[in-house]
Amino acid sequence: MADYKHVAFKETEKFCVKVFQGYGFTEEESRKITDVLLSADLYGIESHGIQRLIRYHHEITDGMAKPDAKPEIVKETPLSAVIEGNDAMGQLIGIDAMNLAIEKAKKSGVGIVAVRNSNHYGIAGYYTRMAAAQGLIGVCMTNTEAILVPTFGRQAMLGTNPIAFAMPADPVPFSFDSATTVVPRGKLEVYAKRGNTIPEGWALDENGHPCNESARVLSNIIHKTGGGILPLGGAGELTSGHKGYGFALICEICTAILSSGTTSNYIYKTPHRSNIAHFFMAVDYGMFGEKKDIEAALSKYLQELRDAAKAEGQERIFTHGEKALIARDRVLKDGIPLNDKTWSEMQMIGEYTGASALLPERY
Amino acid sequence: MADYKHVAFKETEKFCVKVFQGYGFTEEESRKITDVLLSADLYGIESHGIQRLIRYHHEITDGMAKPDAKPEIVKETPLSAVIEGNDAMGQLIGIDAMNLAIEKAKKSGVGIVAVRNSNHYGIAGYYTRMAAAQGLIGVCMTNTEAILVPTFGRQAMLGTNPIAFAMPADPVPFSFDSATTVVPRGKLEVYAKRGNTIPEGWALDENGHPCNESARVLSNIIHKTGGGILPLGGAGELTSGHKGYGFALICEICTAILSSGTTSNYIYKTPHRSNIAHFFMAVDYGMFGEKKDIEAALSKYLQELRDAAKAEGQERIFTHGEKALIARDRVLKDGIPLNDKTWSEMQMIGEYTGASALLPERY
Repeated sequence: MADYKHVAFKETEKFCVKVFQGYGFTEEESRKITDVLLSADLYGIESHGIQRLIRYHHEITDGMAKPDAKPEIVKETPLSAVIEGNDAMGQLIGIDAMNLAIEKAKKSGVGIVAVRNSNHYGIAGYYTRMAAAQGLIGVCMTNTEAILVPTFGRQAMLGTNPIAFAMPADPVPFSFDSATTVVPRGKLEVYAKRGNTIPEGWALDENGHPCNESARVLSNIIHKTGGGILPLGGAGELTSGHKGYGFALICEICTAILSSGTTSNYIYKTPHRSNIAHFFMAVDYGMFGEKKDIEAALSKYLQELRDAAKAEGQERIFTHGEKALIARDRVLKDGIPLNDKTWSEMQMIGEYTGASALLPERY
Repeated sequence: MADYKHVAFKETEKFCVKVFQGYGFTEEESRKITDVLLSADLYGIESHGIQRLIRYHHEITDGMAKPDAKPEIVKETPLSAVIEGNDAMGQLIGIDAMNLAIEKAKKSGVGIVAVRNSNHYGIAGYYTRMAAAQGLIGVCMTNTEAILVPTFGRQAMLGTNPIAFAMPADPVPFSFDSATTVVPRGKLEVYAKRGNTIPEGWALDENGHPCNESARVLSNIIHKTGGGILPLGGAGELTSGHKGYGFALICEICTAILSSGTTSNYIYKTPHRSNIAHFFMAVDYGMFGEKKDIEAALSKYLQELRDAAKAEGQERIFTHGEKALIARDRVLKDGIPLNDKTWSEMQMIGEYTGASALLPERY
């Protein structure tokens, strides 16, 4: 990783806020978008962080994500809502939708909000952490551009379709956020930017055969020429690739089907629209018992997992969300690691949006 | 599979009802237990069908599953309930719990029931199909004896922890039911009964190294000497075993933690008790739009998946639940395939329960 250098987190934050203001968002909106975007870098998820600024640049300048769009609630019950996103920025819709789910869960016990016609909204784990911070279970999913090839297929028909789940615990909250593909698209992008080949079992070529060329797989995806990423569990059924395919399909149901929106195979197919759909759920676990007792039981079990006997040669068992906290400490101290390609994209975007003066120092 | 012969489904049903009456269950209870048990054979899931009768025999004769137990609702809201199972038969608790979730979903939109101190309840997909048959989304999970080794560990700390999800669609309802391990324990049992070695990537030995000996892995599990089955995604993080581990952990949260019950690492640790926990959820998707429109959108998408381009050498893409319907037609026509070991167990159990006269003919 010879071309990796760092930028300070706080400076990068200031730069990004200025960038989004440059596209026409208000300062408050720009702060929200930036908070979601950089939380990925903060939690060590390079694939979804500042390296994706270029993607949002294209979406906004193309007109897919509209700074002046006004999402609307088109159907609502005490427990549920459907939001028509009207092509607003995904992060802004996402924060509002999860806040609505949280409000309903606090009043009724459960809140579920399905969203259609949004845009890419960053990491699903951002929104589940919002619920956990309010003492609730948070569940969040999104569909995305078709990239996952169903078991025995050769054509991408489902998105990476992350499923996120968070719940408070001490000292490490449980925060799971997982693409239902073996790896998310962003990981292929990182490999492609580094010029690396990808491991076996990650992707298929245009004929449905295993393929380890990151650039070829990405090119096939972009040009819709077949192939794509394998579901969690890999190719075929022997190591249960059909299960990852099933989890991805559940994600399509909760996002696109419930919101009367668009399944992944139609995302980015209409000019200047993304048509991405999301799902947000908050659950007040106080319905099931004393919240402190339930949290204590989870904390105890997570500690037992971390304390369990390690495989020969391994020193540590993690629980989900723990690595994010370790990354956060490192990033706040050392800065965000940034490769040359992402850095040049930031320079271009700084000029385009008039934010160049706030470009962080790279060290 | 030279030692496989068949028994007629309807005859086997009569035999099983008589068997469970022999243990002291009423005829109605025996019919319910039999319906859950044989639905696994009907859907082609040999691992969870009649070959497991011997396991229920041991649980009942050991006193773990008590024919005279009375489960009770210990906490309830319009949306939720917690059931103390009091060591009743898992299938009976399961049917009542899902019916309660269905009732709440019909009144309020969502129903969630968490259960503690139950026993093994058969296939999770039985209960989600109950909800789908009522025009609802069904979600169901259970924890089980610890068998899943967390990523980088060598000690089983989580169960196979299936997650099931069903929703009506035409002509094939969506019905997903998946252990969060690469394979369920029952599959190892089938391999062990056949004397077969298991594929790479399924299990670990007592030191946390890959192992393809089904008998050794099962023995280690039974004697708690380390090792177990790998999470969906396999060993380590390269093909995302940590994701399967995370889905299994979500299952522990929804079952054991929400019910103030027992996590998998303590299941079967108290003499004559299982302490298994379950989770049942029903959701009325009419909250989000016209049910017929939502079902039509799902049916259309599932058809698109089945119609998508196949990988070279493959002829068919399945959606989840489709294979079960194919198996059902086959089993009703040809009978349940049964190996010699299971057959001799049925003979012994027939004698024990006074059901021998109803032993089905084997052909």
